Amino acid sequence: MITPILDPGKKEPLYEQLYEFIKEEIRSGRLGEGEKLPSKRTLAAYLRVSRSTVESAYSQLADEGYIRARERSGFYVRQAERKFARKQALPEQSPPDSPKRTYLYDLRTSGVDTEHFPFTVWARLSREVLSEYGQELLRATHPQGMERLRICISRYLYDFRRVEAEPEQIVIGAGTEYLLGLLIQLLGTEKRYAVEEPGYPRVHRILTNYGVKPAYIPVDEEGMRVEGLRQSGAQVVHVTPCHQFPTGAVLSAGRREALLQWAGEEEGRYILEDDYDSEFRFQGKPVPALQGMGAPEKVVYFYTFAKSLAPSLRIGYMVLPKSLMGAWREKFQGYSCSVPSFEQYTLCRFMEKGYYERHLNRMKTLYRGRQDALAEALDIPGFRLIGRDAGLHFMLEVTEESYDEEELVERAARAGVYLRGLGDYYASGAEQDGPPRLLIGYGAYDETRLREAARILRKAWEGE
Amino acid sequence: MITPILDPGKKEPLYEQLYEFIKEEIRSGRLGEGEKLPSKRTLAAYLRVSRSTVESAYSQLADEGYIRARERSGFYVRQAERKFARKQALPEQSPPDSPKRTYLYDLRTSGVDTEHFPFTVWARLSREVLSEYGQELLRATHPQGMERLRICISRYLYDFRRVEAEPEQIVIGAGTEYLLGLLIQLLGTEKRYAVEEPGYPRVHRILTNYGVKPAYIPVDEEGMRVEGLRQSGAQVVHVTPCHQFPTGAVLSAGRREALLQWAGEEEGRYILEDDYDSEFRFQGKPVPALQGMGAPEKVVYFYTFAKSLAPSLRIGYMVLPKSLMGAWREKFQGYSCSVPSFEQYTLCRFMEKGYYERHLNRMKTLYRGRQDALAEALDIPGFRLIGRDAGLHFMLEVTEESYDEEELVERAARAGVYLRGLGDYYASGAEQDGPPRLLIGYGAYDETRLREAARILRKAWEGE
Repeated sequence: MITPILDPGKKEPLYEQLYEFIKEEIRSGRLGEGEKLPSKRTLAAYLRVSRSTVESAYSQLADEGYIRARERSGFYVRQAERKFARKQALPEQSPPDSPKRTYLYDLRTSGVDTEHFPFTVWARLSREVLSEYGQELLRATHPQGMERLRICISRYLYDFRRVEAEPEQIVIGAGTEYLLGLLIQLLGTEKRYAVEEPGYPRVHRILTNYGVKPAYIPVDEEGMRVEGLRQSGAQVVHVTPCHQFPTGAVLSAGRREALLQWAGEEEGRYILEDDYDSEFRFQGKPVPALQGMGAPEKVVYFYTFAKSLAPSLRIGYMVLPKSLMGAWREKFQGYSCSVPSFEQYTLCRFMEKGYYERHLNRMKTLYRGRQDALAEALDIPGFRLIGRDAGLHFMLEVTEESYDEEELVERAARAGVYLRGLGDYYASGAEQDGPPRLLIGYGAYDETRLREAARILRKAWEGE
Repeated sequence: MITPILDPGKKEPLYEQLYEFIKEEIRSGRLGEGEKLPSKRTLAAYLRVSRSTVESAYSQLADEGYIRARERSGFYVRQAERKFARKQALPEQSPPDSPKRTYLYDLRTSGVDTEHFPFTVWARLSREVLSEYGQELLRATHPQGMERLRICISRYLYDFRRVEAEPEQIVIGAGTEYLLGLLIQLLGTEKRYAVEEPGYPRVHRILTNYGVKPAYIPVDEEGMRVEGLRQSGAQVVHVTPCHQFPTGAVLSAGRREALLQWAGEEEGRYILEDDYDSEFRFQGKPVPALQGMGAPEKVVYFYTFAKSLAPSLRIGYMVLPKSLMGAWREKFQGYSCSVPSFEQYTLCRFMEKGYYERHLNRMKTLYRGRQDALAEALDIPGFRLIGRDAGLHFMLEVTEESYDEEELVERAARAGVYLRGLGDYYASGAEQDGPPRLLIGYGAYDETRLREAARILRKAWEGE
């Protein structure tokens, strides 16, 4: 409906104001050629003017050729001078972070397979949920998310990750940006935070957007150096113990103990454990989460389904220590759960019926195959693979001095393969120490295509 | 799957460690009666131990009566001493904000009708989207939300609300808590903020959770007093111009002009316009949004579909001034859109096919009927209705001195009707001036039930 401001106080009669308004709409292209105008009756009722006001405006527009009447159908715009002009005014920005050039292969760490998502099952469960729950889907869930889904998650966490989480400690939300944001609000921005370096650029971004300047804790092949954390004076640390991002290191047993001890020494210290792709572990025994190792009151556990299911679902959760639940409720009790009910019901059924576990097993086999294929194809003299234990990416370390990280990335890019060097993950601006290292994600392509990408890389790096 | 930590370094053999672990699982009730254990082969592969390790553990458990073998089927838990004991440990908190007592009627302002949501249409469109877009639904949308949906919204905003918004200025997100939070991060917490008083408790809560202490600007029958805003020294003000929450006042033409002028006088001043239920306007001409009144660079426009569609959908959006888009991208370019693709596709189709407009028209008629019915039934001597122009609630002002606000609320509660006094909406802690006023929401019940609720209220307030 069109919404002019008609002012009876003006010297122009209402019909003329309406005529001028619609004319301007047509001339500017906001009302496009062939568009139907509201019926006189409808528009008069909507604008609270008499029907003759609309009639006069319409007939003047028709007289001047802006609109035309079609018998028993109504009035239509005749001539649009510019077509929906507003549309062109500001160019749409392409999704940031999307490659500036065109690439044959995007091997960044964010690549996830969505081809093998059991879409048929998901669609069937969605339909079941739609017909079984109906109206119920329109009601808001508990602020922490649907209880039944939290029970599923609690069970899963205990069985697979040894995380001790009552459903009452779980907060379901629309992804990490949202949940980590709530947590920062809960703990306060005046606390001192620390992040791993190299580490997750997104976590760094979330913290700095909250005005928090974190300390940077170095990482080596045993994961985060707890010694460095101790020296930093931080109270809250974000860590990826089961699969350090991006190096792929697993936090060693000694470091785990040291980290938990650090947390226990002072009130108000917390470990934010990000368990982002822990289910895809290919070598060695399962590595349980830090949260279940004896100090659940010191750990906030984060998980997102973005990697294990699909990035578009926007469901994640965090497990809060029981002692923080009171403060959480006080601050966020009036907030709505940020995930639509419909997604929650569907995911709940997906988990309850065992599809989630089956999907993970299937993906694990699939990703392991991809990793093997790519690792084999990238067995290049002068390069060494690191971090093959788990996850959807590994690191390629250059063992010969003759190469430079940026040059390797650039050569790959020129040959059509998008990947990143470890240097991109140093948020502090510090120089990276150690040899050049490249991060390679294998989640998004099948084995044949990965071998092809590897062939291109070899050619680009080794020369003809 | 069960995930014990098996340590070859311990003096107990692995099978004994596994046996102890499973026994503890059963004794604690975490493995419930009748549950099936993983097959020996599966568990051995999962834990990376030999099959005989699992075999020994299982047979010891069977010997001691914890599990039993069923032929050609596997091992099952025999005896659960406590049933899923963890479940009971911490009592589930009922959704906060939910009434402590049991009420016959909940007439708070948050009540929305979900019975008349065109669920059949929505479900059909959902199914269409599922089968037409398939895998595409698994890919993340543009960080600001699906472009086609933003085009729909842009068009709708211009046609109905006179808001000037390119699709490129629209940010779709999971509700007001999230979007307003992003905006606070964008403008910064060191700016001085102001809110209306009485006003939206949730907005106040969001600000204080960010560590912002807002100034409180008084409201009268013409809406927010811009004079007070000027005196407060604030730079950013949250305002509900089209239907002040909770008083229902419409910001007068003079105040609108003064507010826009205030914003234009200094760089960095912004008006956050919350247009939460503007589509349900019952009297007078449509009131266009402030954003379209000549200073779109000074206004951030907020909208949520929670009231117009359903609270559980978790879709809202904000329109940012063009001049803020650069800063927005810089801060939030790596964030994912917080609304699942599936909801975005379905809403887009719902709007494109005209269902949204039809739904709003239908609801407007319905809500108007409810308001009329309740207003008529509450025509009580000594009470006066205020704010009937729009929205899903009005205010009942007490014109006789003999009543006290809290007493009226308490008497209503004792009779089974939940409602709130205006005093609850003074966040500053200041005393409310003026007569006692009660807020009454009529969104959630049909006319018959509203009349019944009114009958109860009259009886409770007037005595036998």
